[in-house]
Amino acid sequence: MIKVVAKNFPKEDKIAEVIELCKELVDATRKEEGCIKYELFQDVNEPNVLTFIEEWVDVEALNKHMASEHFTRIIPEFGEFMLKDGDINVYTKVI
Amino acid sequence: MIKVVAKNFPKEDKIAEVIELCKELVDATRKEEGCIKYELFQDVNEPNVLTFIEEWVDVEALNKHMASEHFTRIIPEFGEFMLKDGDINVYTKVI
Repeated sequence: MIKVVAKNFPKEDKIAEVIELCKELVDATRKEEGCIKYELFQDVNEPNVLTFIEEWVDVEALNKHMASEHFTRIIPEFGEFMLKDGDINVYTKVI
Repeated sequence: MIKVVAKNFPKEDKIAEVIELCKELVDATRKEEGCIKYELFQDVNEPNVLTFIEEWVDVEALNKHMASEHFTRIIPEFGEFMLKDGDINVYTKVI
């Protein structure tokens, strides 16, 4: 299992737009084969930290996701709403 | 449900020691009431990124955890093994 934490920093006045965009991405992604979990979270102390926490059966499934029509179409749309680049980590479980 | 992502940056030559310390913390924490999930992950591209991804029934359970004997005893022991301060986010689910 592969876990991904993809942290995003939307502009304070664009949080709602980003969440709206995320809905379409989440709906399409959850239908993908190999997608175990794909959820969006908001930091309780910093509302302009929106983070995807994802689980994939393997790296191939994650790579297929990042090459998918919905991912390659929607991700660029986030650009104008963001304060700075995101922070992405791809993990495997240790304990 | 509260999700916590606690990212740690051990010194490259201290990763094994940190993982060893984490085992004790994980064992004790998983027994805590209100702990849904408490897992340690390692970044597939950056082995010196070790991250706890946690789920708690609510903020009270998380606060009790951070005041627990094992947490308050073990966390300071990490200090000497770390390259820099960790990066912690406490989340609620949006989608």
